[in-house]
Amino acid sequence: MKILAFESASVCASVARTRAAPLIAHSFQNSGATPTRTLLPMAQALLENCDVPLAAVDALAVAHGPGSFTGVRIGVATVKGLALGAEKPCIGVSTLASMAWGARALGGRLCCVMDARAGQVYNALFAIEDDAPRRLCADRALPLAALGEEIGDTPYFLVGDGADLCYNTLKERCPGLRLAPPELRYPTGFGVAAAALPLLRDGRGSTPQALDAFYLRRPQAERERLKRLSAQNQ
Amino acid sequence: MKILAFESASVCASVARTRAAPLIAHSFQNSGATPTRTLLPMAQALLENCDVPLAAVDALAVAHGPGSFTGVRIGVATVKGLALGAEKPCIGVSTLASMAWGARALGGRLCCVMDARAGQVYNALFAIEDDAPRRLCADRALPLAALGEEIGDTPYFLVGDGADLCYNTLKERCPGLRLAPPELRYPTGFGVAAAALPLLRDGRGSTPQALDAFYLRRPQAERERLKRLSAQNQ
Repeated sequence: MKILAFESASVCASVARTRAAPLIAHSFQNSGATPTRTLLPMAQALLENCDVPLAAVDALAVAHGPGSFTGVRIGVATVKGLALGAEKPCIGVSTLASMAWGARALGGRLCCVMDARAGQVYNALFAIEDDAPRRLCADRALPLAALGEEIGDTPYFLVGDGADLCYNTLKERCPGLRLAPPELRYPTGFGVAAAALPLLRDGRGSTPQALDAFYLRRPQAERERLKRLSAQNQ
Repeated sequence: MKILAFESASVCASVARTRAAPLIAHSFQNSGATPTRTLLPMAQALLENCDVPLAAVDALAVAHGPGSFTGVRIGVATVKGLALGAEKPCIGVSTLASMAWGARALGGRLCCVMDARAGQVYNALFAIEDDAPRRLCADRALPLAALGEEIGDTPYFLVGDGADLCYNTLKERCPGLRLAPPELRYPTGFGVAAAALPLLRDGRGSTPQALDAFYLRRPQAERERLKRLSAQNQ
């Protein structure tokens, strides 16, 4: 199965295409440029360089969140558009699960964290078993201190753009934490494709119309509006 | 230090650019297309997508062999040309060492193997210590059976385009062998950049003129010519 996979929910934009397990091509960048500008050119260069038209792809996959509101929206909108135009099925996978797939070579337990601002992180915990991540909890937004309480002394590799923040804040409280090496620390198109493959094989692909972003919290503008409204009502 | 790194000695063509340890951008492909066609367009798309002119790169790195005679020549010639034109230092690193850097997240011991045809493999063995590969032997060409004798029961992850061949031939003789996951199995531009970084920091960069391919054996045409000459002389 050939999957064209997009990840733009975190600080990187990347695209991967896989045929069964092997990786045919992968582009990744973490240069600070917005995925609005880089995501489609990366996909186009990748497909052209492999001599593969979009019509030859079996399904499109995307990291549908959690993550940056704009980043998630860019990835989901890109995949919706491409899938509608090319008449392909598509699937959204958790950004945190795609990180765990991308870092599965580390083995052991993975703590995937993204900086959610306002003192919180987006997080999920995984155990690597038979080269695949097994989920230990649902995706969630929680304060770093609560995550530290839960982890305690258990050894975990930290993956994600919140890894440094988490390590620096919790290393005394959680002596089992280790930073994943930089080349496996960020969500990638490969991780998205790997997370999507078993779901697609299971017949869980959707139409482009049904694909949607998956947010754990309301956007900041909405949170502030609700706060204002609630203050007015008191 | 910003490194633009090329790998075309094996079955893939890839380009990576790193700033100290973090990876800024990476393109990889294993589609079967020749690196003559794909290597420079990948490098160009990568730099353009990151808004980085070649002039802003500090050094160029390449996997200088062992590997396919043509593939190694393409990578080395590309880097020689770019480094001459842009007046940059460059460095060649072992293709096998670059594989070990790329797969360092596996930990333990790595057996890097490339199919050298004629019943032989190009091989080197590494132990991962403090997130870096420590070399256990020089790069060499040897028969698979001899490699199996040496490995015995010791646990090794197999990395490289010869991993499947080696696993299928030796798995009974060497029960400690395990295949690296596909996403870490092939040499990449990232591995080249990671292998080059400590050497460049050590002042071991060279001029483009001094950069050369590193072959462990004579090319097949030359081997056959020598065989004919030797038969004529008998």
